Amino acid sequence: MPESNLAERSYRSEGQVSGAKVIAQALKTQGVEYMFGIVGIPVTEIAVAAQELGIRYIGMRNEQAPGVCLVVSGPGLIHALGGMANANMNCWYTECCMSPPVSMAETPAVCMAASVIRNAKQPLLIIGKGAAYAHAEENIRKLVEQCKLPFLPTPMGKGVVPDNHPNCVGAARSRALQFADVIVLLGARLNWILHFGLPPRYRPDVKFIQVDICAEELGNNVRPAVTLLGDINAVTKQLLEEFDKIPWQYPPESKWWKTLREKMKSNEAASKELASQKSLPMNYYTVFYHVQEQLPRDCFIVSEGANTMDIGRTVLQNYLPRHRLDAGTFGTMGVGLGFAVAAAVLAKDRSPGQRVICVEGDSAFGFSGMEVETICRYNLPIILLVVNNNGIYQGFDTDTWKEMLKSQDATIAAPPVCLLPNSRYEQVMTAFGGKGYFVQTPEELQKSLRQTLADTTKPSLINIMIEPQATRKAQDFHWLTRSKM
Amino acid sequence: MPESNLAERSYRSEGQVSGAKVIAQALKTQGVEYMFGIVGIPVTEIAVAAQELGIRYIGMRNEQAPGVCLVVSGPGLIHALGGMANANMNCWYTECCMSPPVSMAETPAVCMAASVIRNAKQPLLIIGKGAAYAHAEENIRKLVEQCKLPFLPTPMGKGVVPDNHPNCVGAARSRALQFADVIVLLGARLNWILHFGLPPRYRPDVKFIQVDICAEELGNNVRPAVTLLGDINAVTKQLLEEFDKIPWQYPPESKWWKTLREKMKSNEAASKELASQKSLPMNYYTVFYHVQEQLPRDCFIVSEGANTMDIGRTVLQNYLPRHRLDAGTFGTMGVGLGFAVAAAVLAKDRSPGQRVICVEGDSAFGFSGMEVETICRYNLPIILLVVNNNGIYQGFDTDTWKEMLKSQDATIAAPPVCLLPNSRYEQVMTAFGGKGYFVQTPEELQKSLRQTLADTTKPSLINIMIEPQATRKAQDFHWLTRSKM
Amino acid sequence: MPESNLAERSYRSEGQVSGAKVIAQALKTQGVEYMFGIVGIPVTEIAVAAQELGIRYIGMRNEQAPGVCLVVSGPGLIHALGGMANANMNCWYTECCMSPPVSMAETPAVCMAASVIRNAKQPLLIIGKGAAYAHAEENIRKLVEQCKLPFLPTPMGKGVVPDNHPNCVGAARSRALQFADVIVLLGARLNWILHFGLPPRYRPDVKFIQVDICAEELGNNVRPAVTLLGDINAVTKQLLEEFDKIPWQYPPESKWWKTLREKMKSNEAASKELASQKSLPMNYYTVFYHVQEQLPRDCFIVSEGANTMDIGRTVLQNYLPRHRLDAGTFGTMGVGLGFAVAAAVLAKDRSPGQRVICVEGDSAFGFSGMEVETICRYNLPIILLVVNNNGIYQGFDTDTWKEMLKSQDATIAAPPVCLLPNSRYEQVMTAFGGKGYFVQTPEELQKSLRQTLADTTKPSLINIMIEPQATRKAQDFHWLTRSKM
Amino acid sequence: MPESNLAERSYRSEGQVSGAKVIAQALKTQGVEYMFGIVGIPVTEIAVAAQELGIRYIGMRNEQAPGVCLVVSGPGLIHALGGMANANMNCWYTECCMSPPVSMAETPAVCMAASVIRNAKQPLLIIGKGAAYAHAEENIRKLVEQCKLPFLPTPMGKGVVPDNHPNCVGAARSRALQFADVIVLLGARLNWILHFGLPPRYRPDVKFIQVDICAEELGNNVRPAVTLLGDINAVTKQLLEEFDKIPWQYPPESKWWKTLREKMKSNEAASKELASQKSLPMNYYTVFYHVQEQLPRDCFIVSEGANTMDIGRTVLQNYLPRHRLDAGTFGTMGVGLGFAVAAAVLAKDRSPGQRVICVEGDSAFGFSGMEVETICRYNLPIILLVVNNNGIYQGFDTDTWKEMLKSQDATIAAPPVCLLPNSRYEQVMTAFGGKGYFVQTPEELQKSLRQTLADTTKPSLINIMIEPQATRKAQDFHWLTRSKM
Repeated sequence: MPESNLAERSYRSEGQVSGAKVIAQALKTQGVEYMFGIVGIPVTEIAVAAQELGIRYIGMRNEQAPGVCLVVSGPGLIHALGGMANANMNCWYTECCMSPPVSMAETPAVCMAASVIRNAKQPLLIIGKGAAYAHAEENIRKLVEQCKLPFLPTPMGKGVVPDNHPNCVGAARSRALQFADVIVLLGARLNWILHFGLPPRYRPDVKFIQVDICAEELGNNVRPAVTLLGDINAVTKQLLEEFDKIPWQYPPESKWWKTLREKMKSNEAASKELASQKSLPMNYYTVFYHVQEQLPRDCFIVSEGANTMDIGRTVLQNYLPRHRLDAGTFGTMGVGLGFAVAAAVLAKDRSPGQRVICVEGDSAFGFSGMEVETICRYNLPIILLVVNNNGIYQGFDTDTWKEMLKSQDATIAAPPVCLLPNSRYEQVMTAFGGKGYFVQTPEELQKSLRQTLADTTKPSLINIMIEPQATRKAQDFHWLTRSKM
Repeated sequence: MPESNLAERSYRSEGQVSGAKVIAQALKTQGVEYMFGIVGIPVTEIAVAAQELGIRYIGMRNEQAPGVCLVVSGPGLIHALGGMANANMNCWYTECCMSPPVSMAETPAVCMAASVIRNAKQPLLIIGKGAAYAHAEENIRKLVEQCKLPFLPTPMGKGVVPDNHPNCVGAARSRALQFADVIVLLGARLNWILHFGLPPRYRPDVKFIQVDICAEELGNNVRPAVTLLGDINAVTKQLLEEFDKIPWQYPPESKWWKTLREKMKSNEAASKELASQKSLPMNYYTVFYHVQEQLPRDCFIVSEGANTMDIGRTVLQNYLPRHRLDAGTFGTMGVGLGFAVAAAVLAKDRSPGQRVICVEGDSAFGFSGMEVETICRYNLPIILLVVNNNGIYQGFDTDTWKEMLKSQDATIAAPPVCLLPNSRYEQVMTAFGGKGYFVQTPEELQKSLRQTLADTTKPSLINIMIEPQATRKAQDFHWLTRSKM
Repeated sequence: MPESNLAERSYRSEGQVSGAKVIAQALKTQGVEYMFGIVGIPVTEIAVAAQELGIRYIGMRNEQAPGVCLVVSGPGLIHALGGMANANMNCWYTECCMSPPVSMAETPAVCMAASVIRNAKQPLLIIGKGAAYAHAEENIRKLVEQCKLPFLPTPMGKGVVPDNHPNCVGAARSRALQFADVIVLLGARLNWILHFGLPPRYRPDVKFIQVDICAEELGNNVRPAVTLLGDINAVTKQLLEEFDKIPWQYPPESKWWKTLREKMKSNEAASKELASQKSLPMNYYTVFYHVQEQLPRDCFIVSEGANTMDIGRTVLQNYLPRHRLDAGTFGTMGVGLGFAVAAAVLAKDRSPGQRVICVEGDSAFGFSGMEVETICRYNLPIILLVVNNNGIYQGFDTDTWKEMLKSQDATIAAPPVCLLPNSRYEQVMTAFGGKGYFVQTPEELQKSLRQTLADTTKPSLINIMIEPQATRKAQDFHWLTRSKM
Repeated sequence: MPESNLAERSYRSEGQVSGAKVIAQALKTQGVEYMFGIVGIPVTEIAVAAQELGIRYIGMRNEQAPGVCLVVSGPGLIHALGGMANANMNCWYTECCMSPPVSMAETPAVCMAASVIRNAKQPLLIIGKGAAYAHAEENIRKLVEQCKLPFLPTPMGKGVVPDNHPNCVGAARSRALQFADVIVLLGARLNWILHFGLPPRYRPDVKFIQVDICAEELGNNVRPAVTLLGDINAVTKQLLEEFDKIPWQYPPESKWWKTLREKMKSNEAASKELASQKSLPMNYYTVFYHVQEQLPRDCFIVSEGANTMDIGRTVLQNYLPRHRLDAGTFGTMGVGLGFAVAAAVLAKDRSPGQRVICVEGDSAFGFSGMEVETICRYNLPIILLVVNNNGIYQGFDTDTWKEMLKSQDATIAAPPVCLLPNSRYEQVMTAFGGKGYFVQTPEELQKSLRQTLADTTKPSLINIMIEPQATRKAQDFHWLTRSKM
């Protein structure tokens, strides 16, 4: 005779209904407009109560996607996404919480920072995600243009100043880091993404000027020449005021600018060379150059993976701040689809027609691939690109795979990094009514992109087969080229 | 210019290679034969080193599936699965660890237990997973048959004595629990699955005889009449010796047996009635009765979901111990596919032809659905049944769904429990080369089961559409029938 | 046959010796001058290594005294104590760490704060320990005097502006809090010590201007009218600059000032009345008025206990910043003697003759009383006052105690708050060679204070017997007078 | 104006009064007879409520003494102390909890164990505290005497069989461990006290027979020859039954017995030699031999310290089980006085005249010395012996100390292990009305012990000065003689 302990639990949980209403009302009062969750007791009750109050509910398929997480920490992120949402859940007292106070750096330190910049022989600005969160784009752009300084964005700092700005030296990143004598960190932190600020990736005598809102971050890893504690936007304004008092600009014809421009040119040539290779399967550069050609200017770019995220980041350009979401500082796999859903819900609501391009490695896609059902259920304007090399870091082609398994079981013979060759990830999209493309050539890629960008009625997934053993172009630091583990 | 911090990290991790070898060797020494993981630094190195030593490696797609978990706690489980594997990782000293010592209950307590059983008017044995882990099947069966006692298995205690044994009163579960005056718990614990041992689900004066290997468990929730601390198998043997000294059996023509048999008959009739309904979409009973008809006697059954797991458990029969894996005590969703993979790897290796039937609710399947690629990559003998009601607990049909979304976005209009109607989960299987079936009628279900059981070359997924608002049959306790939340 | 596992462990720990040296050297490099600890493996080795490098080592008797704690977090405190030590352990990289960066509030918020203050009818400054840590004494005094504002210190904010400053309204604390319409919090937080900033202790419409270095603190408990995020000293300077631009002062003849002065006068009269009572045993006020009369201007005051700390704080005056150490925000008992040791080690070193007055309740003293041996071992300039009411909150006199125990054991008859009457705590001091005084009358108290202040060669303990049922004077809020529990 | 946040909190806590009563009633129902605590909110209320229900309340001075701890875990300890109290707090359901179930070892393992013992050439029993907790004294004594086996107690296993039993080989401990070929662990665990069971302290081929109630403990550190899982008393009885079936005894004239007896004789001679030394200050052996001479047969012995605990344990004899309390497995300092208070409360209640002898090193005493006030408040039958070497491990005499400090501050010059020489700890006792003795010679020690044992009206403290650099007698393992760190 059947039992339903679930039903029994539900029976018991009736007392929670009013609790659910209280929570929903509190969220509403705080201005929360969206809620991401996984139903189950007692989330269902809260979700229903929230919907009744006009909060939008997006049900995810797995807690790992940042769905439930977004319920807690997400509104800040959403807030940042486009300055559009006024959701914020950081306080619980009596009314909608106040906007955060703004602090500035102390005046003498600002003077000193300006002086250090003026005396730099090989200056560099690094623009971090802190600059994006602080909405500092206008003032940072002024600083870059007024002082004619070269700059470099971190992954989520991309777009604060557009990637195609003439002063962006992203294409000479390693060179810029390695030889700069003064580096201004604008909301960027010296974690592994910036190689901890240490030699040999940096000059041993490089002077860092650290601008950050968090005192505890100042002086981490390196001993900065100047620290400016305060809101990134406010401090940038303070710096601009210094350069207004005594105008100064870095000579555009300096040897440093020349070096950087030459390196950029040669790197771009090398990338283009790789991108134009005609051999099949395609390599990463070929794929990303074709994607970049058709990328809408205002799209959100979400990305996760290893080479896919790293190389994609260098080729795909951002023109607007807060339009790039990466797996981020901790490199957690499985968050990409959740980020894409969050961005797309906003985009759909606020600027119809805007698209979210989600660039996933095939292994990364596996962590949360079932969220494709979520995407289709809410019919979200997402284009998923799965860059498929049949493996993690690298894989095998079908013939090699079959040959290998002739005499031995895959649990014995297959390298742990291998996934099933020629997996038809696009069918995971068609299973739920979205559009799927399986592409093996540049022409197929171009065509599928053109079609999917033209048709805004459905989500889509383009499964892009690349060379399973695809390697990267040679690097200044030899270990950067390694991809075999 | 592209960077690969991953590559850089890999470069740094070279020093870990010998560490990986040390770990792999230690696992080998302890008799570990299988390893489940997610590659990434430093798991890749360990996995490669393990393979070199002859350990089988199964790479999963998400840590949530109990892959990585199995690396730690799993071997014990696998060990239990069929007594086949001798993997065990619970100790790290110098050599393969000893088998666990066996303890018995003290003699006076065994006498007292026997005496309480002899004097029972309405006795009941409950067989828990502890009995399965202790390999107590032979002695428990003897006890059941020699004393002619009615018994009830817990979800993972199913099969210790076959479900179709004449003394099994599973079909009168609620009645048996509610009126028994003496209950012997053989490795079963009074958690929520057994309603905590409390009224109204039990008589207030019921006498529990608790047999458990863990002293801390004795006396939890209720005050037992007798507690027998020791290995389940050893204690069952002690009980048998008591009943050998002074032979005794419970009268098969007692009123209690009569009551139970009548209730079983009426419950089975009600279930059969539901199962035979011809209306479409099908209901749960129709589905499970057809599955039960074709179920191989020696298959593993893995299950997760809400109604799917609860109802499936009552209809699908186990004939062998340690052949049923449930989402378990904590009801964690997303573990089913991982369990299925682990069981199938063993089955494929040890008894070719043996199958794993994994019965998933559609929501449950979403938590780890991408593991289907893992299943196909290793070509595992798994048959996935997705019992699809378009939602969590319940959903909508396509027409209702479309109607509902005519004027409002799904984030506003759709109940949080709804999933996309008519999702073609079987295409998630075909995307990776397995076989997929979309079934809507009993005939299609029968046919697809017949085909997939006949063809052992490939994994398969049968996507079984049921009534989205499917309800359960009426229950003795009114709340058991509720399924709406 | 004797064993020494300790010796054996020591043998094993030889490999740690060089580790100890490395740690000691790192501390030295960071400018650490003092180290507090409990010897034991491996602290002994580190302590010896530190001494070899010139770091002073103070061995405590119990980890509960903040000895070991100071090794970690203490240097910041010591640093604060007198701006004398440059110890700091917050960073571990390559050289002595930088001084913390200073941030300021944004200009518009400073303007708004000044404007709110200008428009206040009943303004109040509350000076917290954040002001003391920020060395903001000079600027805050300027602000108080220039704008003629009433101020109130928190326990550890005492002395930033001297307690005897004419604008200090400490003697009308409850009244000031209750009727102020604008309150400027200078490094003070709205925790339980400030009644969470809520009615009935405050006007429901009071406007808070919060000045704090920590963004997370702003807006806690109440919604402030203005928040100024930044270094307390820097922000106070910004405020002063505002009041320089448009000079303003609060009218000294306002009704508010008149109300406050009258309340101060009547409270002081009530306290004096209590202090002058001739009945014996003495009450709290009598004790503290006599202590206050002889208190050296430059002494450190350390205090812990219940009534002892609360009443002592109102009577004993501080004239210098960072010279008061309380059990603090969490009311942890047992920290007082450790604080006294730390302060005295510094005082002895830097300004010979300076004294530490440690005012302890008898129960509080019991938590760490054995540290008296530490005080004597290092011959520290500490005067311990134990305000002894034979109990926790309250106790019994000897006769009542004896009467009570005639027929019943103390474990049955004695109220849990009672301690042994007439305990001779001063003998705990004489046991280690210090001076001890047992005082029961105002004259004995005066004499013992005179003697011990005159003789700087030894530490001393004055055991001051007070009325065991001593109550407080009547309060504006009725529950403040309760002392029975 | 004074405030009392404490009073305010008390006001708020009135709602807790009925909660306190509920807790007190629950404790009473479970049979709790004693409660140890530190008053403070909300403990005061609970304590008062408990006293009203007839529970005895003992108020401690510091949470570190195991007072509050005892409230939770102590009753089990007290229960063990003399089998007298029926306090027990391990369960919270509806009525006083059941006694724990007893398990036995499986029969084949018992046979094997008996067989291994029969075949031993150099057998040894080690009796641990598990044997004491299991009340196994009668059966273990039978086993020792029937089979004529040598035995060794662990610190808290002392007294299960009296220390002066002819088969006790405590005086040849190292030798017995080192050469035994079969060791039966009766509730003793191979932790650091037993040198982890590893060479060179043991033969590499020693066979361990482990008897323990906890399966997880079996096989820790070593791979035992036989493991007997079950209640120590029940398993010892099973072993006795085996030796009843086929009687056997170990030959009393074996070479092993001869070796052990010789070693015991020579060790005892060496100890006696040390004990009889006439030089002053006294050494450890002199002190403990005089204490042992006068020790009441039925006293509790509590001890903590380094050498004090280690050497004291070898000389001071226990004749009754569960009458010795050591700082224990983790060597936590500061627990001794709390243990003494707990034991004395019971002793005073149940067997008037029984004494608790608490042997403390001077450093150990410092951790909780203020509990002397607790001892005096409740007038507990405790004799405190402080074995005072002016330091931790070792110290200086007064002259050396003074000489050392002539030119330098103690924070610079004094070794971290030094405490103030000639501290008069006995005055900490007289301060609270107890008796104090300061003894420097054997004659003073004898006299003070005689006096204090004769007078049962008051607690006392004997402060015994020993040689500050006192060393131990030479050991088999050279590092055991080291005492300098």
